[in-house]
Amino acid sequence: MTVADYLQEHQDRAEAQLMEFLRIPSVSTDPANAPDVERCANWVADHLRSIGMPHVEVYPTKGHPIVYAEYLNAGPSAPTVLFYGHYDVQPVDPIDLWTNPPFEPTVRDGKVYARGATDDKGQVFLHIKALEAMLAVHGKLPLNVKLLIEGEEEIGSPNLAPFVSEKKKMLACDAVLVSDTPMFAPGMPSLVYGLRGLAYLQIDVQGPDRDLHSGSYGGAVANPLNALAHIIAQLKSPTGTILVPGFFDDVLDITHDEHITLMDLDYDEDRLLNDVGATELVGEENYTTVERLWARPTLDVNGLLGGFTGEGAKTVLPARAMAKVSMRLVPHQKHGDIAQKVMDYILQITPPGVKVKVQDLHGADPVLVPRDTPAMFAAVQALEETFGSKCRLTREGGSIPVVLLFDTVLKAPTVLMGFGLNNENAHSPDEHFDLSNFHRGMKAAARYYELMASTPRT
Amino acid sequence: MTVADYLQEHQDRAEAQLMEFLRIPSVSTDPANAPDVERCANWVADHLRSIGMPHVEVYPTKGHPIVYAEYLNAGPSAPTVLFYGHYDVQPVDPIDLWTNPPFEPTVRDGKVYARGATDDKGQVFLHIKALEAMLAVHGKLPLNVKLLIEGEEEIGSPNLAPFVSEKKKMLACDAVLVSDTPMFAPGMPSLVYGLRGLAYLQIDVQGPDRDLHSGSYGGAVANPLNALAHIIAQLKSPTGTILVPGFFDDVLDITHDEHITLMDLDYDEDRLLNDVGATELVGEENYTTVERLWARPTLDVNGLLGGFTGEGAKTVLPARAMAKVSMRLVPHQKHGDIAQKVMDYILQITPPGVKVKVQDLHGADPVLVPRDTPAMFAAVQALEETFGSKCRLTREGGSIPVVLLFDTVLKAPTVLMGFGLNNENAHSPDEHFDLSNFHRGMKAAARYYELMASTPRT
Repeated sequence: MTVADYLQEHQDRAEAQLMEFLRIPSVSTDPANAPDVERCANWVADHLRSIGMPHVEVYPTKGHPIVYAEYLNAGPSAPTVLFYGHYDVQPVDPIDLWTNPPFEPTVRDGKVYARGATDDKGQVFLHIKALEAMLAVHGKLPLNVKLLIEGEEEIGSPNLAPFVSEKKKMLACDAVLVSDTPMFAPGMPSLVYGLRGLAYLQIDVQGPDRDLHSGSYGGAVANPLNALAHIIAQLKSPTGTILVPGFFDDVLDITHDEHITLMDLDYDEDRLLNDVGATELVGEENYTTVERLWARPTLDVNGLLGGFTGEGAKTVLPARAMAKVSMRLVPHQKHGDIAQKVMDYILQITPPGVKVKVQDLHGADPVLVPRDTPAMFAAVQALEETFGSKCRLTREGGSIPVVLLFDTVLKAPTVLMGFGLNNENAHSPDEHFDLSNFHRGMKAAARYYELMASTPRT
Repeated sequence: MTVADYLQEHQDRAEAQLMEFLRIPSVSTDPANAPDVERCANWVADHLRSIGMPHVEVYPTKGHPIVYAEYLNAGPSAPTVLFYGHYDVQPVDPIDLWTNPPFEPTVRDGKVYARGATDDKGQVFLHIKALEAMLAVHGKLPLNVKLLIEGEEEIGSPNLAPFVSEKKKMLACDAVLVSDTPMFAPGMPSLVYGLRGLAYLQIDVQGPDRDLHSGSYGGAVANPLNALAHIIAQLKSPTGTILVPGFFDDVLDITHDEHITLMDLDYDEDRLLNDVGATELVGEENYTTVERLWARPTLDVNGLLGGFTGEGAKTVLPARAMAKVSMRLVPHQKHGDIAQKVMDYILQITPPGVKVKVQDLHGADPVLVPRDTPAMFAAVQALEETFGSKCRLTREGGSIPVVLLFDTVLKAPTVLMGFGLNNENAHSPDEHFDLSNFHRGMKAAARYYELMASTPRT
């Protein structure tokens, strides 16, 4: 029996077990769910034991536990792959927009609908099933495998960096594998080699010391909402050019070579436009949509609040205004440097009569993983064999800070081999995962581990 | 006994009765308070009967009742003054910022603290007490007096215009008197001859059809919050110049004469700055602060909302953004014309990729009342005699739409003779009314009615 046969034969059982995993409401951000998160960690650990992983441990942290498993029987001369994933999930609000309850997984049209289906339980579980098949068919794995499955990814992995630093030796590996990114399109597998970084700021503007009547004071007292609009309008032009001095200093230009590669992807802009329901796509001039999404920095207001926001009219000249503004960064921008440049600029452009405070809430540096590695080559081969389709090398607009962590602390290249799709509503109601990708993902994963077994140690 | 003696003698009783009036929580906007509002109307009516008003009626409306009283015994050849005021009050939120409960009036430092103290119960009641004194001392009034005291002023007087139109004959008068404006400063009585108008719009901006992940879509999909900031920034310059084409077309310039009069007021800018707690006063160049407040139009954002506004960072590219924007207007601007001009302009400057909807929520035209009338002259004289201080002729930045209503329907000039002070926290916590102005106001009101008795009929 081949691994592929085994996977084929146990499809139904794998789906049934995935449903069990999806039924556990492991929402990491809500303290009320802490017992569920812990139960989920133990469920994952028990499952890893049941497939024959020789060493499995649940490490407590200051927050939610980290599940760790290792198979080292291939011996010190064999390569080692570290798989990283997460078993925690996003909150479910707004709950009334779900077709089925988010923790009662339901299959419709070949897709399983549940919170965590694509992000990231479905993708974690397909690796566990791949390893199970290899162990069941061959009685062993052809390489060493370590699994690091955390429970705090959706709240920014606050306890992962210290854990990885402390357990650096235990986690040592030749390559890291992450399945938490989308495929390029249905039927089109891809490997992500670039992620944007993030600088996330909060701007607070203070005008008068209390809300005033706009009739009695309007015209003489500065309005913090008008001031905030002026500040935001000067951060980025209406057509998408960021206006912060020095913002582009460290931006790595897209090479002609990469430009051609990205053009070759034949990115479907109509599908994107249709998907988001906007009137047109807009952004920085002289770049294609896919370049603007993946390889160019951008700036978005994420939230705005101030004054009277209820029904009807209230003539208030408000005391305060607040905006959350974030920038997606590209190599070689550094989030701390960018945050400082924006803060300095905002203080320069603050209109008269108001006080402004800018806070640096959150940041992550952008990352490019090397494309010219044995791990990348094995991944391309595994995906193309399994999907029978050319593997695209893509970048992503979002940030996955752990990739930089593995690069820095473990000095190992990361392969981002995702099996989700962009429109599977990760973080939204009706999150789902295509079961055909669940099953093909298992085969691709098993094939990747096999191919990695014969790569040279780094 | 003179009227002044009577008022002096009954000071304590008048204050005690005012407390009774202030204890009724006649919050017009809250349906839960509807029985209190009705009780308050009846309390006012009963009190008017008790002082000897020959005819008192409580008129039901679709909303809260209107109290009407009249004294016509001076005969058809005597002048008639129509007093207008309101017995309803603003809501009390935020309740925790009150020193004493808002409906348990408390005297501190010669001021009574309660919701409605200055706006407008204290000012309404001083007129009732003035009429009581005149009736008690002389057994009659020297002129005809009508009182129109409504219960919906704080919610925009939705039922007053139809009532005034329908009862036009009943309300016919030679002059209208309103006490709902501030004095120029403590000890400095004033008559307001100009009020600004209002055009109040809501701007809704739609980007994508749902909230998106800013990493996955930022750079290609237009952000409605950024777009809204660009729109707002183009409505008014950072230093206060309104940029809407045609906005100033109908603005009546301040004459040299009025400029000099306003300069003569010696308006205390430091007191204003200190009062509002801002870093500096700002506004349109080439005009004094008092001109910018009273005689120049302005534009303020009253509310802004969109995206994620909670604690921390959420990387959302929001679907929607909303702003409430209002303009204060001056003669001869018309609110409908201005609203249309702003709507047209916003559609012109809307950045690509978003859809904008602008709604006209509310409007009022500006008004200038004639200064050269017998009623105005009588008012100046009454105030100067009573306060022993020069009466200032001022304008106000706010709007009192009923003034235009009386002008249009009753064809009678309005005298705005207020006894409140700007810092008495109308609409805010710890609203209060200076009891010395309560008592001096009674004397001034009585003197005004006396002087009006000998003016020619209009």
